[in-house]
Amino acid sequence: MKRKIQQLQPLSGFMELLPAEQILFNQMLDIVRRNYELFGFIPLSTPLIEKEEVLMAKGGIETDKQIYRIQKGKVDLALRFDLTVPLARYVAQHYADLQFPFRRYQIDKVFRGERAQKGRYREFYQCDIDIIGNETLSLANDAEIPGVIYATFRNLGLGAFTIRINNRKILNGFFQSQGLKKQVMEILRIIDKFEKIGKEQVKSNLLSFGLSIDQTEKILSFITIEGENDQIISQLCEFGVTNTLFIEGVDELKQVCQMVGLFGVPRECFKIDLAIARGLDYYTGTVYETTLNDCPEIGSICSGGRYDNLAEAFTDRKLPGVGISIGFTRLFSQLKDVGVIKAGNSTPARVMIIPMDNQVARAVEISAKFRANEISTFVYLEQKTVGKIFKIADRLKIPFALIIGNTEVEQGLVSLKDMASGVQDVFSAEEAIDKILSLEIRRETDDEKRRS
Amino acid sequence: MKRKIQQLQPLSGFMELLPAEQILFNQMLDIVRRNYELFGFIPLSTPLIEKEEVLMAKGGIETDKQIYRIQKGKVDLALRFDLTVPLARYVAQHYADLQFPFRRYQIDKVFRGERAQKGRYREFYQCDIDIIGNETLSLANDAEIPGVIYATFRNLGLGAFTIRINNRKILNGFFQSQGLKKQVMEILRIIDKFEKIGKEQVKSNLLSFGLSIDQTEKILSFITIEGENDQIISQLCEFGVTNTLFIEGVDELKQVCQMVGLFGVPRECFKIDLAIARGLDYYTGTVYETTLNDCPEIGSICSGGRYDNLAEAFTDRKLPGVGISIGFTRLFSQLKDVGVIKAGNSTPARVMIIPMDNQVARAVEISAKFRANEISTFVYLEQKTVGKIFKIADRLKIPFALIIGNTEVEQGLVSLKDMASGVQDVFSAEEAIDKILSLEIRRETDDEKRRS
Repeated sequence: MKRKIQQLQPLSGFMELLPAEQILFNQMLDIVRRNYELFGFIPLSTPLIEKEEVLMAKGGIETDKQIYRIQKGKVDLALRFDLTVPLARYVAQHYADLQFPFRRYQIDKVFRGERAQKGRYREFYQCDIDIIGNETLSLANDAEIPGVIYATFRNLGLGAFTIRINNRKILNGFFQSQGLKKQVMEILRIIDKFEKIGKEQVKSNLLSFGLSIDQTEKILSFITIEGENDQIISQLCEFGVTNTLFIEGVDELKQVCQMVGLFGVPRECFKIDLAIARGLDYYTGTVYETTLNDCPEIGSICSGGRYDNLAEAFTDRKLPGVGISIGFTRLFSQLKDVGVIKAGNSTPARVMIIPMDNQVARAVEISAKFRANEISTFVYLEQKTVGKIFKIADRLKIPFALIIGNTEVEQGLVSLKDMASGVQDVFSAEEAIDKILSLEIRRETDDEKRRS
Repeated sequence: MKRKIQQLQPLSGFMELLPAEQILFNQMLDIVRRNYELFGFIPLSTPLIEKEEVLMAKGGIETDKQIYRIQKGKVDLALRFDLTVPLARYVAQHYADLQFPFRRYQIDKVFRGERAQKGRYREFYQCDIDIIGNETLSLANDAEIPGVIYATFRNLGLGAFTIRINNRKILNGFFQSQGLKKQVMEILRIIDKFEKIGKEQVKSNLLSFGLSIDQTEKILSFITIEGENDQIISQLCEFGVTNTLFIEGVDELKQVCQMVGLFGVPRECFKIDLAIARGLDYYTGTVYETTLNDCPEIGSICSGGRYDNLAEAFTDRKLPGVGISIGFTRLFSQLKDVGVIKAGNSTPARVMIIPMDNQVARAVEISAKFRANEISTFVYLEQKTVGKIFKIADRLKIPFALIIGNTEVEQGLVSLKDMASGVQDVFSAEEAIDKILSLEIRRETDDEKRRS
């Protein structure tokens, strides 16, 4: 019984890439990983499957609806929906074996059975870093996180971006001072959409929620305070709010802003934005969002913040932390759609060696020399005409081809074809390696010049 | 409600590592990946979740018992149990967008709900390479695969190993010539355990299966043919079997053996072993197993072979292929148990910078210089005595510490402590970077000398 090909359509919400895109995806993920490691974050990999009771320890209706449950054996299992709950479980479980602050990164898939829609994935990568303290965690860590974000996104080369920062204590303190303590979470959720839906819609949402025109105006004038970071801080200090939480928040924000520059973040990439709230009640201090200046429609590409207690569902120990997450699969898909990134080669091979006249032995022998120089090399071993093989090399976007036939073997040389220029020349194997390496360096430099 | 810590015990069959082991695990996986790419294999990543009907297209009672089914929505979903079925589905689905031979690797987790036992995992990594031809695939590929195995395991540095090779056509042809055509699969399963259970047990199993003493002796004398590879080939040619499948198999084996050396595999690492059958009926030609010479108890660490038709469940196209798989999680666990590998550092950080006297600003400034030199650096930002911080650096096995206090800042210098020797000295930041890089190179060279 043969299946029809139309039954093989991909599941909606599950990304599957063709080679060129997959290679680009991996290269970008490697850049994230390298930057996370450069800041001394430890790689962590937890099982994809957890006990359902662990994943649901904090509950939540959304989580209950979205979780993928597994039918197998006596214990109720499910697929993780984020990397934070597994981190909390891991730190509580392995507490005695860890050094604090525990700086970990995890780049891994998570699963959410959301209603499928454009740009939403059910299986997707998150790239998380978190710094977990034991009882306490210095505020300097809140300033280091933007440093990691900056290094990572600069290295990814996606154009100019802005790291926006706020402090939940300022928002909470402000709302408390306005007699809106009980409504804080709901108000935060409304103003968190400011960037997306605009001032007028936020205004109308706050009014429908039941706030007075006065309260609404005050909130709006507060979250739209503008200026340089130190100007905003001054205005906050002069806003006349005496609530202690508010004052603590302003002081924290001030300190973090003063330190961020030390971690290499240029002034123009870092901005206080009092409208940033982050929907989750999880965050208790600093909060971050990051946007690409030229692609505001993508929304935040990297978000996170400070939390008082990572693992309260699993341990009585107080474990404060600060962290961020990049929703990588969605980001990749959006960047592709807006044309910020473009897939290149369809193979890691930089050279295709083509044996002619049955000179397979010599071709294979030479391939070893290339690999010894860390050059990924693909020996074409099938019987085809050289024209057809060139076509395959072209489609794979392999930059160089090496032809080895009777003439080359007799002369002890190889023919090197630069696929970009079409130029073909005869070299010794060693010369061909040098030629390829120098051409690659030159092209890389040209690419960099063009980008800058 | 706080959970008790004993409820947080890991699920049996799911590997979770502490930092030092995780770092080693990742380093080894990176070596595999680098070697696969060096041979021009294309990275592939398919969703972990597939339609159950896709995964079960080839059926099998074992698969049905072991598969993890997912409760969600209208389509029956499940977690993949290998990387081969998803590859078959991928190639059938994306056929028009791929170039053949399609050389792909996939390093990813798979799931099998087996009875938990030591060394068996329910969630584990497989590292697969496959070369898929369109209609045909040259036999030279069967010789290249051992070349990839050799490069990868040599680079992993696990000691001497032997790649064993056989050809299913020889076995099938031989059994046919003995009038045992119908019993082939059962006999293959019995002799496949030769290495594990020994000659006497195989003999008794063949007899209980119903073979005559004569047939049993003939099979045993056949699968225990010994000698150098060309001697074995000669003996096979002289064995007097006229079955065409047998003759074809001997000819293929001979050709592959002649070519393997070209791909860099030394003679002593490559051996014909007529007892290797591979249990699956999937294989149709060349079959491989790889064993560590000093750890025979681990069994095969890398197995695979040639198959006539990858995707017959999904397409009418004939797609022959050859490939191998490393069961990486199990291998890692076993190598750890027998002491062949040993975890080292608990962090990627090579330097910990310790600000004293509140010199955080200068410490952070210097950390940027280290990172610009690709040195992973961790600035310790908490308030602790220098003695306690050294203890943490020791436990993390960070090789170098940099102390920056008032004295250092006044002099414009840093104190560099070599944690291995305990020697502490004063340098400029640039000198400290050079010192670290040169010490690292020296230690790496020493390590290499000690190993060889």
